[in-house]
Amino acid sequence: MANWRSAWLLVVVACGAAQAVELPDTSVERPRAREAGVVIGLLPTGPRNAIVDVPGVAVGHATVFEGDAIRTGVTAILPHPGDLYRERVPAAIVIGNGYGKLLGVSQVAELGELETPILLTGTLGVWRAADALVGWQLAKPGMEEVRSLNPVVGETNDGYLNDIRARPLRAEHVVHALEIASTDNVQEGAIGAGTGTVAFGWKGGIGTSSRRLDEGQGGHTVGVLVQSNYGGRLTIGGMALDDVRPERTASRGANDVPPATGDGSIMIVVATDAPLDDRLLRRLAARALLGVGRTGSSMSNGSGDYVIAFSTAREVRRSGDTARHAQQLLSNESMSPLFDAVVEATEEAIINSLFRATTTRGHRGNVPALPLERVLPRLRRAVDAAP
Amino acid sequence: MANWRSAWLLVVVACGAAQAVELPDTSVERPRAREAGVVIGLLPTGPRNAIVDVPGVAVGHATVFEGDAIRTGVTAILPHPGDLYRERVPAAIVIGNGYGKLLGVSQVAELGELETPILLTGTLGVWRAADALVGWQLAKPGMEEVRSLNPVVGETNDGYLNDIRARPLRAEHVVHALEIASTDNVQEGAIGAGTGTVAFGWKGGIGTSSRRLDEGQGGHTVGVLVQSNYGGRLTIGGMALDDVRPERTASRGANDVPPATGDGSIMIVVATDAPLDDRLLRRLAARALLGVGRTGSSMSNGSGDYVIAFSTAREVRRSGDTARHAQQLLSNESMSPLFDAVVEATEEAIINSLFRATTTRGHRGNVPALPLERVLPRLRRAVDAAP
Amino acid sequence: MANWRSAWLLVVVACGAAQAVELPDTSVERPRAREAGVVIGLLPTGPRNAIVDVPGVAVGHATVFEGDAIRTGVTAILPHPGDLYRERVPAAIVIGNGYGKLLGVSQVAELGELETPILLTGTLGVWRAADALVGWQLAKPGMEEVRSLNPVVGETNDGYLNDIRARPLRAEHVVHALEIASTDNVQEGAIGAGTGTVAFGWKGGIGTSSRRLDEGQGGHTVGVLVQSNYGGRLTIGGMALDDVRPERTASRGANDVPPATGDGSIMIVVATDAPLDDRLLRRLAARALLGVGRTGSSMSNGSGDYVIAFSTAREVRRSGDTARHAQQLLSNESMSPLFDAVVEATEEAIINSLFRATTTRGHRGNVPALPLERVLPRLRRAVDAAP
Amino acid sequence: MANWRSAWLLVVVACGAAQAVELPDTSVERPRAREAGVVIGLLPTGPRNAIVDVPGVAVGHATVFEGDAIRTGVTAILPHPGDLYRERVPAAIVIGNGYGKLLGVSQVAELGELETPILLTGTLGVWRAADALVGWQLAKPGMEEVRSLNPVVGETNDGYLNDIRARPLRAEHVVHALEIASTDNVQEGAIGAGTGTVAFGWKGGIGTSSRRLDEGQGGHTVGVLVQSNYGGRLTIGGMALDDVRPERTASRGANDVPPATGDGSIMIVVATDAPLDDRLLRRLAARALLGVGRTGSSMSNGSGDYVIAFSTAREVRRSGDTARHAQQLLSNESMSPLFDAVVEATEEAIINSLFRATTTRGHRGNVPALPLERVLPRLRRAVDAAP
Repeated sequence: MANWRSAWLLVVVACGAAQAVELPDTSVERPRAREAGVVIGLLPTGPRNAIVDVPGVAVGHATVFEGDAIRTGVTAILPHPGDLYRERVPAAIVIGNGYGKLLGVSQVAELGELETPILLTGTLGVWRAADALVGWQLAKPGMEEVRSLNPVVGETNDGYLNDIRARPLRAEHVVHALEIASTDNVQEGAIGAGTGTVAFGWKGGIGTSSRRLDEGQGGHTVGVLVQSNYGGRLTIGGMALDDVRPERTASRGANDVPPATGDGSIMIVVATDAPLDDRLLRRLAARALLGVGRTGSSMSNGSGDYVIAFSTAREVRRSGDTARHAQQLLSNESMSPLFDAVVEATEEAIINSLFRATTTRGHRGNVPALPLERVLPRLRRAVDAAP
Repeated sequence: MANWRSAWLLVVVACGAAQAVELPDTSVERPRAREAGVVIGLLPTGPRNAIVDVPGVAVGHATVFEGDAIRTGVTAILPHPGDLYRERVPAAIVIGNGYGKLLGVSQVAELGELETPILLTGTLGVWRAADALVGWQLAKPGMEEVRSLNPVVGETNDGYLNDIRARPLRAEHVVHALEIASTDNVQEGAIGAGTGTVAFGWKGGIGTSSRRLDEGQGGHTVGVLVQSNYGGRLTIGGMALDDVRPERTASRGANDVPPATGDGSIMIVVATDAPLDDRLLRRLAARALLGVGRTGSSMSNGSGDYVIAFSTAREVRRSGDTARHAQQLLSNESMSPLFDAVVEATEEAIINSLFRATTTRGHRGNVPALPLERVLPRLRRAVDAAP
Repeated sequence: MANWRSAWLLVVVACGAAQAVELPDTSVERPRAREAGVVIGLLPTGPRNAIVDVPGVAVGHATVFEGDAIRTGVTAILPHPGDLYRERVPAAIVIGNGYGKLLGVSQVAELGELETPILLTGTLGVWRAADALVGWQLAKPGMEEVRSLNPVVGETNDGYLNDIRARPLRAEHVVHALEIASTDNVQEGAIGAGTGTVAFGWKGGIGTSSRRLDEGQGGHTVGVLVQSNYGGRLTIGGMALDDVRPERTASRGANDVPPATGDGSIMIVVATDAPLDDRLLRRLAARALLGVGRTGSSMSNGSGDYVIAFSTAREVRRSGDTARHAQQLLSNESMSPLFDAVVEATEEAIINSLFRATTTRGHRGNVPALPLERVLPRLRRAVDAAP
Repeated sequence: MANWRSAWLLVVVACGAAQAVELPDTSVERPRAREAGVVIGLLPTGPRNAIVDVPGVAVGHATVFEGDAIRTGVTAILPHPGDLYRERVPAAIVIGNGYGKLLGVSQVAELGELETPILLTGTLGVWRAADALVGWQLAKPGMEEVRSLNPVVGETNDGYLNDIRARPLRAEHVVHALEIASTDNVQEGAIGAGTGTVAFGWKGGIGTSSRRLDEGQGGHTVGVLVQSNYGGRLTIGGMALDDVRPERTASRGANDVPPATGDGSIMIVVATDAPLDDRLLRRLAARALLGVGRTGSSMSNGSGDYVIAFSTAREVRRSGDTARHAQQLLSNESMSPLFDAVVEATEEAIINSLFRATTTRGHRGNVPALPLERVLPRLRRAVDAAP
C-alpha cells in the first residue's frame, strides 16, 4: 500500500461512489508524537513504533468517506499470515468498561484463542462487519467443512461525524481491509475505523506504538493499536492540557456538538511475540487500561473500553488437529517488563492517534484536529522544567 | 397466531419460496412431557407451563424451511410489550461453556440490563439477526436519535440439518418473528430457532416450561425457554435411557451422521416477575445449568451453554431518563425457592423440546424424533417402581 | 494410617483431651455406594475409586471430637509429595454459589497455581487453619526466605453438630492432618472436615470417587473428594427419595433441628493427572457442579458451593526459578471425556459421603445416618425396572 | 484519639512490650500533598480530605512497633457505627492484580455486601486478623446465634521492615484498631497497616483523600484510603521523578535492599454516600486502579492491587430480616462524575501516604521518607511552567 489516500480511493471506487467528495484534510505534515519530541515512557520502541513491529502482524484499513455524512470505516488486524483457523493464537479480552458491542468475547474467554482476524469499526456496523468477515474466511481454501467461526469485532461510536443510523458499512469494505492488510507501516489518524471518531473533543482515530524489551528481559516486542473515541481531561506525558480545549461548533442545533464528556469508547489491540498463554495475555491486557488512564480518562459510563491481546509466538500456537499442544510459556515472574511495555505503548498509541488525525467535517458538524501548534509549546515548557 | 404451521407458511410466502417443499412431520399427537405423564420436580407450573406465564413476555418464531437443505429459523423473546429501550429490564447472562457466539454479553454484564428483545437462531446467522433487530428497533417511533443499541442474540449450531454455510437467514425472518410475537401459547419443537437443531442424537428444538411459587414464597413465576442442540447421556426424570439410541442414517457419506457427542449447544432464556436486579438474576441464571446437567449433559467442549435471565417486575425497570431508580428487590435470603423453580423448569423445557420435536430431513441427513412409544413405557415402569 | 479410628484417637491424645467421650457410631458395615450396588455413570473407576487414584495425591484427616459439643475437624489434600512451593501445580477455582469463606481464591485466579496443600474445615475455623498451614509450611527446610504464601482453605458450616462459636480447631489439628496425609485409601464419612457436617438432613461428611479414561482417550484419571453439608431433594442415581426423610429431633428447642433447607455448602476438590493448565482446569471444575445438581441440589442461597481443581501432571508443573515453562497441554477438543468423568465422580463422591457417614450426636442434637436399609431397596426396585 | 503516637503507645502497653524501642521519626512537619501545594485533579475535596468525609465512616489504627524488627500493624475501616451484621452495606471488590491474600472476596461477589468492618494488615497476618475480627464481632450483643461471618481482610507485604515470618500481629491489636476507630481525622503514613510498607523504594503507608461532587451532580462524597506498598516509576501530578531515587542501603547483605521493583501491593478502600448497589460499586472500584496507574504503577507481577468499595447510603442498606429491600439507586448514566472523583482521590491518597510517611528503620534495613525538600521544588517548577 503506497499511502493511505490511494487506499481510500480504492475503496470509494470499489463501492461505486467515486463522485467528488470533500476529502479530509490530510496534511502530511502532522507528526507522530515522538517525531514532535513527545516521548512517552522509558522503554525503546520497535523499529517502526507500531503494532507491526511484532513480526507477522498485518493491519489494513478501509475508509468509508461518502458525501457529507458518511465518515466511517473498518480496520483489520491479522495476527499472522497463515491459516488462523488452523494455527490459532492464544488470546484474551479484558473489559475496562463494558458499554460496547465487542463480538466474540465469550468464546475467547472459554477457549483462550483467536481463530479469525480482529476487526474494528463503528458501533452500528459491527454485525455486518462480522458477517462479512465470516463470509470471507469461510470462502478460503480448506474451509469447506467449517460450520462455526468466532469473529472478534470491536467498535466505537462514530455517530457524531458519521450518519451511523444509515449503517453504511458493506461487506466489500471489510474484504478490502482484510485483503490489503500489510505488515508495513500502519497509517494513523482519521482512517479506517478511525475515520469518524472523536477523542477529548478533538479528532481521534487510529494510533499505534510499540516497545521492545532488551535481550536480558527476553527481547520481546509489545505492539498496540488503538481506535480512540473517548474523553476526559486530556493529559499528554503527564501534563493536563486544561487550557487547550476545542470550541464547540454546532452545525445544526444546540445539541449538535461533539461529545463533550468522556463518553465514547476506546478499542485497544495488543500484540506480542512473547510466548504467553491466555491467562498471561489477560494479565497483559489489563495493564493497557492504565495507559488509557494516564491520558486523562476515568472510563466514563458511556465509554466502552476494551483490550484484545494475542501472542504470535510459534511455541504457543494451537493446531486444531492435535490432542496435545506443546508450549513454552513465560513464567508469571517474567511478566513485569511486558506490563511496563504495554502501558507505555498504549499511552503513546493514543497520543499518536490525536497527533495524526486531521480536522474532519461530517454528519453533525466539524471536529478539529488537536492544535499541535498550541500543544507542543506547552509540552516543551514542561520538558524544559524537568532537570 | 392460530397454529405454528400457518405461521411457517407465512414465512415461506414472505421469502418468495412458496414452491412445494417436504413439510416436517408435525404429528399433532406428540404430547408435551407433562401431558404424557412425565412430571419433572415438585413445584406447580404456571397456567400454560410456558415462559409466557410470566406476564408480558411474548415469543415469536420464524421458521426458515426451504428446499432440501435449509432448516433454520429465529425465535424472538420480548420481555414486555412496551418500549424496551426506555423501560429497560434488569438482566444477566451466565455462561456454562462459552463455546458460542452470543452477542451482547459484555454490555449486559456492565449495565445489567436489556434494551432489546432477545433473539435465538443458528450459529452463522447471529450477525444478520442482530443487524436486522437493530434496524427494526431503530425504526420505531421515538428512536430517531438513538445511535447505539445492544442486541442480545444467541445461537446453536444447526449445521447438520441446515446448510448453515449458505447463511439463509434474512432480515425479514427476524422482523417476522418480532412482529408476530405473542403472549399466547408458545409453539415447541422443530420451529423457529429450533427448526434444525439436534439433541442427544434426536430432533431437538424449542421447549418451554414454568413454575409458580405459592403466595407464601412470593407467588412469583419463573418461565424458561430453551433451544436444545446438545447431547450427553439422555436422562429423563432421572432415568438414563441408554437403550433408546438413534440409529445413525448417513445420507451422503460416512461422516454424515447427526452429532454423536455432546457437542452442540443450548440456549436458555429465563424470565421471572420476581423483582430481581442483575446480581440476583445472575444467581438465578447459574442454577438453570443444573437443569441441563440433570438431562445428562456434562457441557462438552463444543457445547455453548448460555443462560440469559431477566425480570419483568415493574419495580425494577429502569427508565433511561432519571438519575435515580427506585427499586423493590428480593433479598438474598428469599432466592432459594426461585432457584428450585428454575432448575425444574429448565429440565422440563428441555424434555418438552424433545417430546414436541418431529422427525426432520435436511441438508446432511435425517434426524428422528425421540421415539415416545419406546421412551414412555420405560419411564412408566420407573414411576411404578417408586413407592 | 491403619484405620481412621486410630487416627482419631491420635488426635484426641495430641490435644490433651483424652477423657472419655461418646464415640461416633462407626459401624464398619456401612458400605460405599458401589459396594452396595449403586453405580453412578458409565465410566470405570480407578483402582481405589478415590482421589488418591491420581498418583501422588495424599489425604489426611484430623477429627476434633470432644465432649458433647465439639464435632469438627480438618482434611488436608496434598497434590504431590514434593516441595509444593517450588513445584507448583496449575489450579483453578470455580464458584457455584459464593456464600462461603474459601481463602486463597484471588491469587489462584491470577497466578493459576497452588503453592500449598488444600485444607477443608468448619466455617469459623478457616482462618486458624490457614494460619497453621502457613506456619507449618514456612518451617520446612528451604523456606527460610519465603515471606508470602497463599493457603487455600475451604469450609462448610458444621454449626449444628459442632459448637462452632467455640472455634475449637487448633494448629496441632492442622499439622496432624498434614503430617499423616497418605496416598492410601481415603477414609470417608464423619471424619476430618466431615465430622460435623449434615447433608439433606442426614449425616454428611467426606466422600471420594474417581474415574479412569481408557487409553484411547488418554488414560487419565480424575479423582474427586467432597465435604458434603448441603441439601435439596435427595436424589441417588436419578431417583428422588422423597419418602426417605429424616425425622427432626430437636434436642433443646423448637429451632434446634438440623438444617431443613438446602443451606449449608459443599466443597469439592478435583485432582487429575491429565496435563491441564489453569484455564482447562477451570473448565473441568465447572462441570463438577453438574454432579452436585444431579444429587438434588439447586445451590440454595446459603450454600457455598466451591470447586478447586488441580493437575498433578509433571509436564505442567511450574518451578518458580525459571523464566519459562515448557508445557504439554491437552487441547480444548480433548476435554469432553474428562468432563464426563468429573460429573460422575462428583456425584458418586457425594453419595459415598452419605453412605459412609454414621449417626452423630452433637451440640444441638442428633443427626442420623442415611438409612441404607430403606434406601437400598428403593434403588434396587428402580434398577430392576430398567431393561 | 489525640495523636497517633499516643495511640501507638497504648498498643505497646497493651501488648506488654513497653520497654524502650526506637521510635519512628514522626516529624510532625511533613505536610499532606495539598498542604504542600500539590493539587491532584480538578474536583474539590471534602472538609477533611479523607475517607471519613463520608458520614459515618470510621478508621482506627493499631501500630505494632517492637524491638528492632517488628514493624507492622492493622488498620480498621468501619462503614457505619451501627450493627453491620444487621444493617449491611452494598460492596464490591475489584482486583487489578490478584497476587494477594484478600479474604472474603467470593462472598462479597456473590452477596454484594459487607457484614463486617474491613481490616488491612501485613501479608502473613491476615488470617489472625480475620480470626480476631470474627471473635470481636461474634461477642457483640445480639450476635449470640450467629454462626457464620465473612470478614474482609486485605494485606500488603511489609516483609522488608518487618520480621514478617514472626507473625507478630495479635488479636489485641485488631481489637484495639476496631475499638478506637474514629470518624475524626485519619492519621497517615507509617502507622497501622502502613507501619512497615514501602512504596517506590520510599517509606509508604496509609494515605487518604476525598472528593465532593457539587449539588448538581448529586452532592455525593467519595473517600479513599490506601495502604501503599508498591512501585514503578514514581509520578506525582503527572511528573515522573526519575532523578529522585532512594539510595539503597543494605543493612545485612547484598540482597537486603528495599524492594527495587514494582512488586509489593496496594490495598484501596473506597467509601461513598452515593446510593450505589454492588454492580455500581464494582464499576466505581474499577476506576480507582486508574489512579494507581497515574502514580507510575504498571501493576507488576508481584503486586496485589485490590479495591474494596462500599456505599453508606441508608437507602441501599440491607437488613437481614426482610424479604425485600427498597432501594433508591443512581442510574448508570449518573456515574461518570463519581468515576472522576475516585480516580483523583485515589491518586491523592497515595501521594499523601508518601508525603506523610517518615523514615523507618526495621528488620532488614532502613527505608527513607520521600525527600520532600527535593521533590517539591521539582513539582513547583512544573507548575510554574503551566500557563
